[in-house]
Amino acid sequence: MKNILLYLPQGFEAYEASVFTDVMGWSREVGAEPVSVVTTALRPEITCTWNLIVRPEAAFESIDPEKFDALAIPGGFESAGFYEDAFDERFLGLIRTFDRSGKPIASVCVGALPIGKSGVLKNRKATTYDLPDGSRRTQLARYGAEVLDERIVVDQNIITSTGPATALEVAFRLLEMLTSKSNKESVREQMRLP
Amino acid sequence: MKNILLYLPQGFEAYEASVFTDVMGWSREVGAEPVSVVTTALRPEITCTWNLIVRPEAAFESIDPEKFDALAIPGGFESAGFYEDAFDERFLGLIRTFDRSGKPIASVCVGALPIGKSGVLKNRKATTYDLPDGSRRTQLARYGAEVLDERIVVDQNIITSTGPATALEVAFRLLEMLTSKSNKESVREQMRLP
Repeated sequence: MKNILLYLPQGFEAYEASVFTDVMGWSREVGAEPVSVVTTALRPEITCTWNLIVRPEAAFESIDPEKFDALAIPGGFESAGFYEDAFDERFLGLIRTFDRSGKPIASVCVGALPIGKSGVLKNRKATTYDLPDGSRRTQLARYGAEVLDERIVVDQNIITSTGPATALEVAFRLLEMLTSKSNKESVREQMRLP
Repeated sequence: MKNILLYLPQGFEAYEASVFTDVMGWSREVGAEPVSVVTTALRPEITCTWNLIVRPEAAFESIDPEKFDALAIPGGFESAGFYEDAFDERFLGLIRTFDRSGKPIASVCVGALPIGKSGVLKNRKATTYDLPDGSRRTQLARYGAEVLDERIVVDQNIITSTGPATALEVAFRLLEMLTSKSNKESVREQMRLP
């Protein structure tokens, strides 16, 4: 079974992480090709941008990247501490490791920024949240990415996206990348998505 | 500011709870009429159907229903223990209290079942997840509800819905009920939803 590592930075948006746990969870309940997920974080307890206080399943130090087929990264708010963990050098190193092996890296919203900061988006296409002042996209461009004004951008193994509205679609793209289109469609159907 | 109580039963689906925390969270970041959320549970720590281990903000015994304007209920899987907490008599009593005051009660998927079991759906319209064998809808009908085959059903103060696919829409309906259509639309826009 394919296995996704879901990184939970301080201040992550619960909605943008739950699409990965729940789409893959439904794939294990009803899919022909189930995919598993393990959550990890740098802290023993993470406070989401709003309300939820979450304990990761595995400590970051215990993670063996060899055991995972893909990396998933939700977005979050700076005011909630998102970049403290998203930009931590230990996590940026993990992104580079996944990218070197050509493993899928799927991000939602500003989850694209640590991918950019790690250096792996140089001369590659990507997108991120379009703050009214354009600052997040400018930041992504400074990391060397060619920033596109599209809801979801896939450049080889890397998926980036605009905002929370794209989160479910990012999770389904990742499911399809790891399994098959027909598996993705049967999971969508069981979740009653059109 | 209007205030929503979000009940987290053991085995809840993170996706179906995060729509409430995050839509209302975005309303506080960008909305003209912000809405707050407090999470509660019967246990000090809740294990979601998949992956996430969550600590509620407020103990159930400490909740004063007078301080809340609405109740939100996610669905979850029976195999993950959902009905242990969803059908607990203390929670069913809370549902009756909110309904007696005509306060909105919003549920996703099988979150409709505790509303039915509490008795407040007698002779009222509702819906829930359509398992292939129809058992969840039969169960809801046994509680006296008139079960409709619709994605979302609103009967006065009570919102019920079919499955995860409806979760975002349920949260937005609740936001609109508590504030206004224009506020809902501006929050949708900031979340980049069509």
